[in-house]
Amino acid sequence: MQNSIKIYQEMRKKLNAYYYAMWVMSWDSETELPHGAVDYRSEQIEVLTNEIYALETNKTYLKAIDLLYLNRDKLDDLLKREIEKVEKELRLIKKMPKDEYIDYQVLLSKSSSVWADAKRQNNFEMFSPVLDKIIYYNRKISKYLQTDTLKGYDVLLDIYEEGMTTKVYDAFFQKLRDELVPFVLSSTSGKGPLPRKLSKNRFPAEKQELFNKYLLDVFKYDLNRGVLKTSEHPFTSNFTSDDVRITTKYLENSIESAIFSTIHEMGHGIYEQNVDSKLRNTLLGGGASMGIHESQSRMYENMIGRSYAFWEVHFDKLKEIFQKELKGVTLLDFYHYINRAERSLIRTEADELTYPLHIMVRYEVEKQLISGKLKTKDLPKRWRKLYQEYVGVRPKNDQEGVLQDIHWAGGMFGYFPTYALGSAYAAQIYFAMNKEFNIENAISNNEIYKINDWLKEHVHTFGKSKTPKEIMLFATKESFNPDYYVEYLKRKFSN
Amino acid sequence: MQNSIKIYQEMRKKLNAYYYAMWVMSWDSETELPHGAVDYRSEQIEVLTNEIYALETNKTYLKAIDLLYLNRDKLDDLLKREIEKVEKELRLIKKMPKDEYIDYQVLLSKSSSVWADAKRQNNFEMFSPVLDKIIYYNRKISKYLQTDTLKGYDVLLDIYEEGMTTKVYDAFFQKLRDELVPFVLSSTSGKGPLPRKLSKNRFPAEKQELFNKYLLDVFKYDLNRGVLKTSEHPFTSNFTSDDVRITTKYLENSIESAIFSTIHEMGHGIYEQNVDSKLRNTLLGGGASMGIHESQSRMYENMIGRSYAFWEVHFDKLKEIFQKELKGVTLLDFYHYINRAERSLIRTEADELTYPLHIMVRYEVEKQLISGKLKTKDLPKRWRKLYQEYVGVRPKNDQEGVLQDIHWAGGMFGYFPTYALGSAYAAQIYFAMNKEFNIENAISNNEIYKINDWLKEHVHTFGKSKTPKEIMLFATKESFNPDYYVEYLKRKFSN
Repeated sequence: MQNSIKIYQEMRKKLNAYYYAMWVMSWDSETELPHGAVDYRSEQIEVLTNEIYALETNKTYLKAIDLLYLNRDKLDDLLKREIEKVEKELRLIKKMPKDEYIDYQVLLSKSSSVWADAKRQNNFEMFSPVLDKIIYYNRKISKYLQTDTLKGYDVLLDIYEEGMTTKVYDAFFQKLRDELVPFVLSSTSGKGPLPRKLSKNRFPAEKQELFNKYLLDVFKYDLNRGVLKTSEHPFTSNFTSDDVRITTKYLENSIESAIFSTIHEMGHGIYEQNVDSKLRNTLLGGGASMGIHESQSRMYENMIGRSYAFWEVHFDKLKEIFQKELKGVTLLDFYHYINRAERSLIRTEADELTYPLHIMVRYEVEKQLISGKLKTKDLPKRWRKLYQEYVGVRPKNDQEGVLQDIHWAGGMFGYFPTYALGSAYAAQIYFAMNKEFNIENAISNNEIYKINDWLKEHVHTFGKSKTPKEIMLFATKESFNPDYYVEYLKRKFSN
Repeated sequence: MQNSIKIYQEMRKKLNAYYYAMWVMSWDSETELPHGAVDYRSEQIEVLTNEIYALETNKTYLKAIDLLYLNRDKLDDLLKREIEKVEKELRLIKKMPKDEYIDYQVLLSKSSSVWADAKRQNNFEMFSPVLDKIIYYNRKISKYLQTDTLKGYDVLLDIYEEGMTTKVYDAFFQKLRDELVPFVLSSTSGKGPLPRKLSKNRFPAEKQELFNKYLLDVFKYDLNRGVLKTSEHPFTSNFTSDDVRITTKYLENSIESAIFSTIHEMGHGIYEQNVDSKLRNTLLGGGASMGIHESQSRMYENMIGRSYAFWEVHFDKLKEIFQKELKGVTLLDFYHYINRAERSLIRTEADELTYPLHIMVRYEVEKQLISGKLKTKDLPKRWRKLYQEYVGVRPKNDQEGVLQDIHWAGGMFGYFPTYALGSAYAAQIYFAMNKEFNIENAISNNEIYKINDWLKEHVHTFGKSKTPKEIMLFATKESFNPDYYVEYLKRKFSN
């Protein structure tokens, strides 16, 4: 037993270093790598993936894990949870033939770049064969991992959110559809034009950068353990709590896009920075699940960042930087502008209210792609149809349609629904936190650290050592309950 | 024999991928890594260095190399040269105990960050223990690698410039000292004040960035296979010809610093981009030697970038960008300003004429540190004394003195003298190229690609497949001859 623990921990230390190197390369690929160097990098990643594969399938290591898994009740809680996770993760590597495994990893290392080209050139055909192969592999993965109770798309959903199934999601979305869609349709029509100063102006990137750097300080984002940079699609990337990198994107025709991207990614980033550092070299470091992660980013972005209390404090700073551009714009103008609800095409630019409708489209097509009911080539057409149906708008081309998101290029099927789930978690957690102290007061007093601290103690610090269900129970003292979300949205957007 | 070749090439492919990952992490360390993540990275690098060490000392691999080395005359020319190089490189790993080797690698992975802190805080004491340990290891390395003919500092000099010894360098520097120092002393005194518009003005970083991006195009720097970024100390970093990254640094109190840093690094970068891609997965990719490398960067920076012909074409663009700042400044003012010779403290900001005197200081102290004649703790004092003696100025503190360069923090002893050697190579190569076409005409016609092409054909394409001596002979049709350099400097600075 002791020997197995030693074998396990030595191999984890080694694997950790390999995955760390792969992580640095993936950050570099998305922020720095010159186009002409993509193929060469893929070749090197192929070699290193082979090395990792050899370590992950090392017989002594696998035997040690089997032994520890059988005797898991004798282990301390953390190691027990880690062994359960690694055993689950290794199921794929044990069942998937090596050639397939390597081939899929190499495919993924190239696909983001193909997707970016296809999006730039508005050409779905370019991306289609790659996507088709990714779907093919996701179906295979689902087969390899299926159990008596989990099959098909459910297997993939469980990867990103332990315990979630189409049954739960179908019910959740049905609820949103019943209560939210009519509300949305009535509240997104018949409004006057937007203030031109906000909607038709040019906001220089340098000024935006100034304000975004100011936000880092407002939220106490720790730059000694983090980075803010720009990339095509904003994201958070980290390996431990010591090095949490976020990106944003400055669009000169939008005053708000970068601001809320930055706050959103800071939500992810603060979470990661707050995970207990004792978990760092285990498999339990990092956020608990995609849903819990997204609950943090969406709470920071929407519930804090788009609140009236927040802009009461920070609007002056914004006006100081955009003196000319925002001349004559009032706090109330601005607040209404950043909380307008409208039917739109781009998920990342969508407002808080209509956002889950964008997710519904993706959820539906993913279900159909994985089940085989929808062919990859028919995806753009189905996408346009569903957008018309759920969001009430129709993309003119694939750049603003099916090519807008990077996720599928990264092999992520089953991920999107966690975005909507996250918003619902967020409302429930916010409600629980607000019972313990007045959140609006904290925002008004520019004391966001109070929120950070509460979340650290009740959510962040645990990393993956608790399941999403356990975290929701610990933080809110009840199970997941979507009512808070619907109630919150209706209240906010009834004004 | 065939089997040994196969074993050798398979292991090289694997090692290549590991070194590639280490390279990406080193780029990231110098441009992106948050301060709080330095230690964690060192731990991961330690693990990976152990993995690399195990591969480099794999018995089957070493046996294959021994066999190929013994039978090297039966190999084709490229493989023969590669085996000779790898055999030479492995001498250290064979002789140095594993613990020492790993310890030294880990030390180097941390030392740049310690140096940067020490420099920022103007505190030599902070860096001193690290530097002392690096010197200790360099002495060890010298002992492990010594031969009947090469001992002490000579062993280190040979690492950076095959075939160069203190005997040759002593003579080279003596020549410069005899002919250049009196010339410098007379030409750097008794001049009028500098034009205030150039010397006392503020040049916004954004505008500098614009002009530096323009320069990328002027020199046809291939951004499809490269990156331009900023860092504390400008440098070039690459792994293959497909991904050649250069950095610059914008100082708002200098119109010229970033411009000539960028052109200098482009000289290195164009060289690397032009190395024959068939060499990419061998040990023969990349520049031939430090001296040859520096000959390219210095030729681009000084002989092209500081020429009158160059600014006749590009000064208008500079004035267009710095309309306000350069109002009333003439082309001739600017030309004289960027070619002024003066006694100064910072090597990277030194002019073309006095530059080798800065190198002489470093050459002298390195010789003494390695021989043990000079203790690390006495270094700042000796540094100040030698600057007074050779350059005629005395640093007020260590930030502008002994802490100014990153090289020693990277373990590089024996590297500095190649900078002066490079300038001398450059003059000789320029003279040879100018016999074949009129270089000034090419510059005047904004046809720098002609220079790039000639250098590609005569110098760059060979990578390390030729020795520095062979390259000089091939490109200039004679052996290294420092006369061209002294003659060039005297002619240029007599005006």
